Amino acid sequence: MAKEVGFVNQGKATGGDASNAKEIGIGLLGYAFMGKAHTNAFKKIPYIYWPPAAIPKLVSVCGSHEDGVREAAARYGYDHYTTDWRKLVTDPEVDVFDNVGPNNLHAEPCIAAAKAGKHVLCEKPLARNAREAKSMWDAVREASVKHMCGFSYRFVPAIRLAKEMLDAGELGEIYHFRASYQQEWVMDVNPAHVWRLSKETSGSGAVGDLGSHIIDLARFLVGEVETISGTTRTFIPERPSADGKGTVKVDVDDAFEAVVRFKNGAVGTLEASRFCAGRKNHMTFEINGSKGSIAFNLEKLNSLQVYFREEQNPQLHGFREVLVTESDHPFYSVWWPHGHILGWEHAHIHEINHFLNAIAMNESVEPYGATFEDGYKAAVICDAILVSAETHTEQQIAYE
Amino acid sequence: MAKEVGFVNQGKATGGDASNAKEIGIGLLGYAFMGKAHTNAFKKIPYIYWPPAAIPKLVSVCGSHEDGVREAAARYGYDHYTTDWRKLVTDPEVDVFDNVGPNNLHAEPCIAAAKAGKHVLCEKPLARNAREAKSMWDAVREASVKHMCGFSYRFVPAIRLAKEMLDAGELGEIYHFRASYQQEWVMDVNPAHVWRLSKETSGSGAVGDLGSHIIDLARFLVGEVETISGTTRTFIPERPSADGKGTVKVDVDDAFEAVVRFKNGAVGTLEASRFCAGRKNHMTFEINGSKGSIAFNLEKLNSLQVYFREEQNPQLHGFREVLVTESDHPFYSVWWPHGHILGWEHAHIHEINHFLNAIAMNESVEPYGATFEDGYKAAVICDAILVSAETHTEQQIAYE
Amino acid sequence: MAKEVGFVNQGKATGGDASNAKEIGIGLLGYAFMGKAHTNAFKKIPYIYWPPAAIPKLVSVCGSHEDGVREAAARYGYDHYTTDWRKLVTDPEVDVFDNVGPNNLHAEPCIAAAKAGKHVLCEKPLARNAREAKSMWDAVREASVKHMCGFSYRFVPAIRLAKEMLDAGELGEIYHFRASYQQEWVMDVNPAHVWRLSKETSGSGAVGDLGSHIIDLARFLVGEVETISGTTRTFIPERPSADGKGTVKVDVDDAFEAVVRFKNGAVGTLEASRFCAGRKNHMTFEINGSKGSIAFNLEKLNSLQVYFREEQNPQLHGFREVLVTESDHPFYSVWWPHGHILGWEHAHIHEINHFLNAIAMNESVEPYGATFEDGYKAAVICDAILVSAETHTEQQIAYE
Amino acid sequence: MAKEVGFVNQGKATGGDASNAKEIGIGLLGYAFMGKAHTNAFKKIPYIYWPPAAIPKLVSVCGSHEDGVREAAARYGYDHYTTDWRKLVTDPEVDVFDNVGPNNLHAEPCIAAAKAGKHVLCEKPLARNAREAKSMWDAVREASVKHMCGFSYRFVPAIRLAKEMLDAGELGEIYHFRASYQQEWVMDVNPAHVWRLSKETSGSGAVGDLGSHIIDLARFLVGEVETISGTTRTFIPERPSADGKGTVKVDVDDAFEAVVRFKNGAVGTLEASRFCAGRKNHMTFEINGSKGSIAFNLEKLNSLQVYFREEQNPQLHGFREVLVTESDHPFYSVWWPHGHILGWEHAHIHEINHFLNAIAMNESVEPYGATFEDGYKAAVICDAILVSAETHTEQQIAYE
Repeated sequence: MAKEVGFVNQGKATGGDASNAKEIGIGLLGYAFMGKAHTNAFKKIPYIYWPPAAIPKLVSVCGSHEDGVREAAARYGYDHYTTDWRKLVTDPEVDVFDNVGPNNLHAEPCIAAAKAGKHVLCEKPLARNAREAKSMWDAVREASVKHMCGFSYRFVPAIRLAKEMLDAGELGEIYHFRASYQQEWVMDVNPAHVWRLSKETSGSGAVGDLGSHIIDLARFLVGEVETISGTTRTFIPERPSADGKGTVKVDVDDAFEAVVRFKNGAVGTLEASRFCAGRKNHMTFEINGSKGSIAFNLEKLNSLQVYFREEQNPQLHGFREVLVTESDHPFYSVWWPHGHILGWEHAHIHEINHFLNAIAMNESVEPYGATFEDGYKAAVICDAILVSAETHTEQQIAYE
Repeated sequence: MAKEVGFVNQGKATGGDASNAKEIGIGLLGYAFMGKAHTNAFKKIPYIYWPPAAIPKLVSVCGSHEDGVREAAARYGYDHYTTDWRKLVTDPEVDVFDNVGPNNLHAEPCIAAAKAGKHVLCEKPLARNAREAKSMWDAVREASVKHMCGFSYRFVPAIRLAKEMLDAGELGEIYHFRASYQQEWVMDVNPAHVWRLSKETSGSGAVGDLGSHIIDLARFLVGEVETISGTTRTFIPERPSADGKGTVKVDVDDAFEAVVRFKNGAVGTLEASRFCAGRKNHMTFEINGSKGSIAFNLEKLNSLQVYFREEQNPQLHGFREVLVTESDHPFYSVWWPHGHILGWEHAHIHEINHFLNAIAMNESVEPYGATFEDGYKAAVICDAILVSAETHTEQQIAYE
Repeated sequence: MAKEVGFVNQGKATGGDASNAKEIGIGLLGYAFMGKAHTNAFKKIPYIYWPPAAIPKLVSVCGSHEDGVREAAARYGYDHYTTDWRKLVTDPEVDVFDNVGPNNLHAEPCIAAAKAGKHVLCEKPLARNAREAKSMWDAVREASVKHMCGFSYRFVPAIRLAKEMLDAGELGEIYHFRASYQQEWVMDVNPAHVWRLSKETSGSGAVGDLGSHIIDLARFLVGEVETISGTTRTFIPERPSADGKGTVKVDVDDAFEAVVRFKNGAVGTLEASRFCAGRKNHMTFEINGSKGSIAFNLEKLNSLQVYFREEQNPQLHGFREVLVTESDHPFYSVWWPHGHILGWEHAHIHEINHFLNAIAMNESVEPYGATFEDGYKAAVICDAILVSAETHTEQQIAYE
Repeated sequence: MAKEVGFVNQGKATGGDASNAKEIGIGLLGYAFMGKAHTNAFKKIPYIYWPPAAIPKLVSVCGSHEDGVREAAARYGYDHYTTDWRKLVTDPEVDVFDNVGPNNLHAEPCIAAAKAGKHVLCEKPLARNAREAKSMWDAVREASVKHMCGFSYRFVPAIRLAKEMLDAGELGEIYHFRASYQQEWVMDVNPAHVWRLSKETSGSGAVGDLGSHIIDLARFLVGEVETISGTTRTFIPERPSADGKGTVKVDVDDAFEAVVRFKNGAVGTLEASRFCAGRKNHMTFEINGSKGSIAFNLEKLNSLQVYFREEQNPQLHGFREVLVTESDHPFYSVWWPHGHILGWEHAHIHEINHFLNAIAMNESVEPYGATFEDGYKAAVICDAILVSAETHTEQQIAYE
């Protein structure tokens, strides 16, 4: 019997234990939404992946508000906390610096951590612009530390399945990639002006926050980008300030629209917006190739739509909805019997486990993990969209 | 009881008869796929719309192959046939010239028909390019005849419902329009080179054939276009000739990708391709506004996806699938009890009935019917996509 | 090139003509909803099916209200009309008696027509109960006329595709059939009491009207029924009378629920209700077999959901949505290019064409057409549901 | 601003800490699939629910194979382990006995634990039959301990939303409940005979394993059951034994089909099968009421389909897909920004947190938590299905 059935046997003794697991000290910058998601991953990995290759030790958490960071340390079980990231990145117990802070706190702390010999995981977008991202990539290369940029969607099972299909040539020559990342969270003018709406803290708006995700997927799944042309829009140009006093100018984009040409000849559209009523975290992409097509939607992330042109019975062609929850599907074997779906958080667990394993076994995070090089290249394309929007001309993509 | 229930009473006598119906002589150029669809409409209108305002009389059909056109006349019940379109457009019994021929046979016959005082219905795209389209629009204006360009999707019930919602402001300020028209019919190299793959006969490829439809919907639903920028691709540049001897160069696009900016500030993407495996006649669009969103798919044309931000219970927000088959939905009351879905052909019936009624009652086909002006304006935008693809710059849309 | 591409060549001359077509005189009883659907079929068949085997001649239409039937004759083009069905069924010009009247007008006119040597098409349910249905079946057998019961869903392309798959063993041994027919048209108390709510005119409620459809599909697709057990409910037991004076007791069921066992060992559920809010004409079924599963929804009738257990790549198993609009799909070749979907009315066109062809060519309507035998057998099962609901015991199905 | 926006502020200090949290000692029987799911819940609760009311302490895990249970203790962090459940249930450090063992190990250990004063959580079905379940319910009542039966689907956000809607009368009078639980894991004969296929260990097959879930939801959502009638089938009556020597008779059902009548007048169907190709963990239900309808599918558990009859614009009625991930949706506020979907495991986290909170705060687990009374009542209905299948008569449901 090749394949394990349904829900039997998941409790068999493996004979394994944790004695060979490498303990890896974690220092986390930021403890809100993303800090919770990452910490959740650190805490689940040792019992989900068994026997474990790496056991994360929650050493220290850093944030600017002492009350908040103290409470976060207590809540999540970090040994200590600090309000000074410089202490965090030089903490001798810290092996991995995990940066989930706002974009304006990406470059300097990550570079400092690399210089201090820490492995670095930094949330996306890697930086506020390509120049800043390049300096980060340079730093980690120079320091010879492991580095990953948090393009976690590479670790969604259905997306990894798509990647494996593409690598195996199952879709043939690729003709089209279209991706659209739609949210709605700033459609009301009321939400106070937050860091994601400021160029100083964010670099850009939907371009960097949402666009970087689909740009990374474009590169990951289809290949290198040759040109991009596009436009941006800011629908609500002024918002109440967070302190309730007066208004603040929104100097980043609420949305962008772009046409992309790939080096391999594929063409398509890229788009992201925070003004799509009813779309909560609606990241969709479709790929059309000479042998078939696939389609994905992050709000229904457990399935991949797949169409093959060549099948035995041509009367029965159709897009099939593949539920990516079989034990031989990417990432799934450690979880549950098939059909017991995963959530958004699981992509982070898969991603962080990948990083910790690479460290524990001193292996490369590539080709599946996004490196700072990938973070830099996405930033180059993000910048090119902004330039195209201003100059109304198509931009050639060139990396340093 | 305001609303008729289920399936009672559809047979009630109305007291109406056909005595006031105007007989309208039809001359048809072309009798293949579209000729069948149009003739089907002419034949159904008198008993579906009751009491009838207009009764089409099938006068003459024209085609280049005598055997074919003779058989078509017998099959569809046209009184006579001809292989000379000049005879058709001057036939005194013909009131309406219906042109479903290839694109290179649009301008000259339509202009001649207009000069002969015939009302003209011409399939889309109106012409091979904007210049040719302009000459047609000029001709019908000068002749003061009724004219429509066959953008039949305006007559799909769900799309008309969308139009009514937009006109009533139910979606608020419009932020985004994204449309994609996907087919797969020329993905194999084998299909012989047909007229739709030749610039001489077609003008362009996916741009004019599929793109014109979504460009018209963009203008119909969202408003006038300010700029467009895009790219095109021809994936299979050479194909076997239809006569089996050698190959022919494909000099039109297989696909295009574009970014559109509207005068009202909305932005979006437009795309069409004949290389989307698994997509048969997959025309989709989505519109996001300040009050809600809608989404449509031509392969599931009986429904419209609708989302409203403001509803009584915010916990129960969600995209609803509106089955557009109620007696108070656009176009539906003449058909069946609710839930008995319509097909693609019905849009043509609605469209042609609209045109015949406008003639019978001497009313304008606007704002719902697409005129030659609309056909021309779509052609301007199609041309601009081709120019943008060559020049790599955004094009301003300007009409003469 | 085995398969015709996209939308070319549909206009090729076939060399055929109508000279060999048999003219068949039609006499129609009833002219409301179903009369319109049937007449629409009669009128479309001669130009859709080409060259035609049969050409229906609309001889006479019959109804109880003279104003209505006179108008119907004018509207639909029947040569004459009558208010006396006895004249209709003996009209020497009539070859086919088409009965779309209420259920209490099925047996007597059909039997009289058969005795007069007319071929008979009768809408479903064949009669108000099995006894009545049996007398009809006896009559048509004795008269040796062609007969069909209007289980038109057998002629929906996706359902025929399912039938072909099942006959070819593509689903293997059948384990389950579950069907649910959901409508909502009598949920309000206001709708006046109509004939479908009266046992005298209808025989039963949801059981006969909706249940007979899914019972016929159960037999058509899966095989003969061994036992049935069920329950019925009448949610609104009294309604305003149609004339506005007082109320009338509803003496038929609004809904039924049943468990079915088939002779081949399959088991499942059957259900129909007119009290399913939001369901307009929502007839769904699913079949599970040892090799795969299929699922269908009448409100989305152009597609069939199909799952196969054995496919080349087990990682890519999934329910596929087959759009049943290819030229080699059942019934589709006479229509349009693929992806141009059909509506509800087309099933009636396919069905009636099947009947007329059987007459013209003197062939059997079986196995695809439902005969009066099928109508009788469905009635036996309907009756058994009603008995089971009263006796609270499972009923064996036995035919005379 | 009433509602928190998108993803801001999740990191705000609450001022809370864990000092008031009650530590609760956990003793777990079984450590395979369900043991992993429960342990995962115990480990996540202290940092997801903050400030915590209860902090589970993993005291001891019990299993029959010493190697396996020792490894499980190491993997999941239980302080110690045992192969003797009698030691577990009397362990003075254990406050909660959590029973995820096979069904034949439910009654005796749970009763012993209750007698030892432990609170008891027992996986569903509560027991192999109603008699056994009754003895368990009696025991926990007598011991006055908290008790829950693991009907975890009550803690799926979309199902809780359905419950809240029903309790608030938003669907009006209920007409129908139809539920179907479909899996495919034993369709091959190859899978060795496992405990779930044996009456001795399981009590029944699909009836108890899957049917108990939908029976509980029927009672939870619609109300008490009055009668049930049904049939069962065992499609593969003999299977290879687990030790590879010979075959074993399957003495439980592979599937059942039933009709249910509720005390409030609603009627419907219940069904479960392990022979539905392509269905992995496909539990669906639909409810139709006088004001609207809802539909749910466990494989897409983040959404609920909702239809309302009365809405402002009747043209825009339709089933809406409510993504149940807003901060004011049930259970969601502790997780992520909206649109970041949850998985199957989260229902267990919500359920176990509910139980621990009830213990910590000495509150009732009702009405949302399923008690042993609910487990017993589901068992009564399961037994009635089996009796009905044998006797071919409808069974009245009566509880002791």
